[in-house]
Amino acid sequence: MAEIRIAYPPWVARRVAWDAVYASDDDRMGLAIDLSRWNVVEDTGGPFGAAVFERDTGRLVAVGMNLVVPLSNSALHGEMVAFMMAQARVGSYTLAGEGMPAHELATSCEPCAMCLGATLWSGVRRVLCGATRDDALRLDFDEGPVFDASYEYLAERGVDIVRNVRRAEAAEVLALYRRRSGVIYNA
Amino acid sequence: MAEIRIAYPPWVARRVAWDAVYASDDDRMGLAIDLSRWNVVEDTGGPFGAAVFERDTGRLVAVGMNLVVPLSNSALHGEMVAFMMAQARVGSYTLAGEGMPAHELATSCEPCAMCLGATLWSGVRRVLCGATRDDALRLDFDEGPVFDASYEYLAERGVDIVRNVRRAEAAEVLALYRRRSGVIYNA
Repeated sequence: MAEIRIAYPPWVARRVAWDAVYASDDDRMGLAIDLSRWNVVEDTGGPFGAAVFERDTGRLVAVGMNLVVPLSNSALHGEMVAFMMAQARVGSYTLAGEGMPAHELATSCEPCAMCLGATLWSGVRRVLCGATRDDALRLDFDEGPVFDASYEYLAERGVDIVRNVRRAEAAEVLALYRRRSGVIYNA
Repeated sequence: MAEIRIAYPPWVARRVAWDAVYASDDDRMGLAIDLSRWNVVEDTGGPFGAAVFERDTGRLVAVGMNLVVPLSNSALHGEMVAFMMAQARVGSYTLAGEGMPAHELATSCEPCAMCLGATLWSGVRRVLCGATRDDALRLDFDEGPVFDASYEYLAERGVDIVRNVRRAEAAEVLALYRRRSGVIYNA
């Protein structure tokens, strides 16, 4: 049986400023949007990027990008890759472990149903979203069964969610992908 | 940055009958429940098992089991592992690709929010569930934001979901896990 291996595309080492401090919400979303754009222009997957930070220091812990098509794996949305890589880095199945700093996710587009569920299990305490479900739908990307009650469910469990951060810039990458005729899987 | 590697625990090679034909819903759920129990008794993760079959032939394509704690990865619920391994085996990000037979998932417990979303993206056309959300909650496993409307969303998109298949046997493995004082993460 195959072993699953998930690694970043080569451009991550070249493009990501690992040692920068991402102080503000705008800085953090800026990286998530850059990741989504780099993934399109490098032709390594869908137009979605994400990053996990230490919430209070702005230290970058992990990045993620949609790798569904190149890695033949429908689970590899940008948020999922970011969570997996962050947990590998801290060596725990939760980013909310005892003695850990609080973590947060920035994602270039509102999470689909899978990624919203994964957000709850990941241990992040805060989420920044760029483009909206409607922006994704306009590109024919289905977001799955996500409802207002889904967001409330996470909020009640202490996950702070901020939407529409640099939305227009994030949505512009979705449009760029469409212009380049990228694969719309699961349309 | 770490590469993520996901492989089955060693007992899979020894215990799983890969060449058997799983003809009925009962046979398929029987394997999912066996996987959940083996994962508990072998001490390799949480009490959840899943398997992907070709729907019409009963051929086994992939199995999955909860590997969250041993692999430090909150995404590795049994269903997610089964989907990833099945897609790796067929070499595609979808199990509903052109020319493919229809696929189905059997899972020992109703999918959490993440796994229900992942079910939609996986390409399976049918899902068998054993234990229920309430059975999982009694063990203090949160299932996340899953609503009746979530199931309807999948049904409207052609995913046939059958619940309460061998529920009592599936729930018994959850109770076994509790008796053995397994880790309840994300409680």
